[in-house]
Amino acid sequence: MTNPIICEVTRGALVESLHRGAYVVVDSAGAVVAASGDIERPVYARSSMKMMQALPLVESGAADAAGFGVRALALAGASHSGEPGHVAMASEMLQRVGLTEDALGCGPQWPAEVRDMAALYATRGRPGRIHNNCSGKHAGFLATARHLGHDVATYLDPSNPVQREVKAAVEAVAGTVLDAGCCSIDGCSAPTFAMPLVSLAHAFARLGTGADLAPSRAEAARRLMEAAMAEPWLVAGTGRMCTELMALAPGRIYAKTGAEGVYVGAFPQAGLAVALKCDDGTTRASEALMAALVLRHAALPAEAAAQVAGMADRPVTDRNGAEVGRIRGVLAGA
Amino acid sequence: MTNPIICEVTRGALVESLHRGAYVVVDSAGAVVAASGDIERPVYARSSMKMMQALPLVESGAADAAGFGVRALALAGASHSGEPGHVAMASEMLQRVGLTEDALGCGPQWPAEVRDMAALYATRGRPGRIHNNCSGKHAGFLATARHLGHDVATYLDPSNPVQREVKAAVEAVAGTVLDAGCCSIDGCSAPTFAMPLVSLAHAFARLGTGADLAPSRAEAARRLMEAAMAEPWLVAGTGRMCTELMALAPGRIYAKTGAEGVYVGAFPQAGLAVALKCDDGTTRASEALMAALVLRHAALPAEAAAQVAGMADRPVTDRNGAEVGRIRGVLAGA
Repeated sequence: MTNPIICEVTRGALVESLHRGAYVVVDSAGAVVAASGDIERPVYARSSMKMMQALPLVESGAADAAGFGVRALALAGASHSGEPGHVAMASEMLQRVGLTEDALGCGPQWPAEVRDMAALYATRGRPGRIHNNCSGKHAGFLATARHLGHDVATYLDPSNPVQREVKAAVEAVAGTVLDAGCCSIDGCSAPTFAMPLVSLAHAFARLGTGADLAPSRAEAARRLMEAAMAEPWLVAGTGRMCTELMALAPGRIYAKTGAEGVYVGAFPQAGLAVALKCDDGTTRASEALMAALVLRHAALPAEAAAQVAGMADRPVTDRNGAEVGRIRGVLAGA
Repeated sequence: MTNPIICEVTRGALVESLHRGAYVVVDSAGAVVAASGDIERPVYARSSMKMMQALPLVESGAADAAGFGVRALALAGASHSGEPGHVAMASEMLQRVGLTEDALGCGPQWPAEVRDMAALYATRGRPGRIHNNCSGKHAGFLATARHLGHDVATYLDPSNPVQREVKAAVEAVAGTVLDAGCCSIDGCSAPTFAMPLVSLAHAFARLGTGADLAPSRAEAARRLMEAAMAEPWLVAGTGRMCTELMALAPGRIYAKTGAEGVYVGAFPQAGLAVALKCDDGTTRASEALMAALVLRHAALPAEAAAQVAGMADRPVTDRNGAEVGRIRGVLAGA
């Protein structure tokens, strides 16, 4: 099937570009509340599932053994911008388990902000692995491997017990079987998994409510989700939509983006969770659609809703700052 | 109509993302040689039509009066990366007509390369208008305004004679009427126009061959196209596909990208021209499709063809450089 339009980008009187995709909203019992497009086709969850990948870190006791607080748990599930505070937190996590940046298996990545890129260029000339947006997740993997006595050097290998635990946690929480055809490698060289959008949404419904989860897993999920919502800047960074959504309505929104146009969310007070994928992998579209879904389903106070409305339908500007068009998230039937 | 898939992005065993769009290849007589998708819907040509926007600069005698050589003509039709050589050339163009960066109406833009961004951050702290990828085009507009005695301060206003001349040239070369609904503002604050892809392709067939053009316009087109093909680095920059395509088969390929997934090309030796648009505006897709079209239609020598094949079907790598998928341009019937 051809997925419906989920985002329109206008310029002047015309639609200049458009994005197709699918989304699904489920309640805490797993019932589909709203959906559009193909929600059964497997899509790589990419960084949207970082919270699931961090479950073994907490459940195993590795996080507590390392003295990881709320900030470390937030960074373990982050796609951070490589700002100095992110890098410092990732370094602290590694130091707490007796490791350094050298132990990270993720490749190097420039920070997202020009300011940080320029500072790094001036001091080191090139980015490090600690600046990779996934360095907190990798620090979490490494802490788990250290705590459980697994081989640290091969911590990204799908056969390493850490990654086996991660995969088992994802399968259990998403309620899906990840066969070989759905397993691949992420941009940070960690295993990644594809699953139906509806399974991804179910996972975040379970993570947000604890429903269907063993008590220890439900407790780990609660700690990770509360950490993300308490420290939204650590989950993404300055000006990033995940950070802004979580900051504007504390406790009401968990939001996490993933590469190639994926977004997930949990709205604990509304008892709902959401997963979406833009077919073409474009972030502006996944963000506009996510904002439209938050606006409709997260039961926000009026002031927060007004801010989210400005993300769901925002201006395209020229480089002088003048509005020349709009980017609009499009919900089915809207 | 829903346009067909023009690019697939795989990861592991799955198609992770896909892009839809349309393309058309025409011969020098304007006959459609190959086409896919909706080629009649108006699409904003954006920077793909910069050569058309530079016609009045040459036809009016402004370029010669200012002593603009081949390099200046290449930059007048460029979307450059803001590298030092681009900035120096744009500055020289302005200086030759007695103006400075202050006269530019385009907004500021950071250079594309980290090295240049970092150097600029260290010296100025912020980007200037001279670094805008369109600064050469704007220097051309300004030189035209100076030479013809039109108001320099309002050179971007659609009612300024410079922009009226530009619009008339685009209409004549593309063989289309640009009504108000097809006129808007580009990212650099200059007027931009939407036209059917088939008209955009016809324009580059005419520019490449001089067919249907008045002698003075045909001569201006010849000079601009030869300048671009002689100085491909000035048209884009280090590592950019426009530059690489023109450099690998001198005289056989003119290639120019535009924002929101547009690409145009002229293959003078094959007597063909091409225009394409990715529906969702993504550059990776417009590039992969353009490379596939160059490979099929530009009549390249074997060595050049092998290089272009590597652009039409290229690896997706993780940040350690390992291949994890492919980006493939998809032609109709292929």
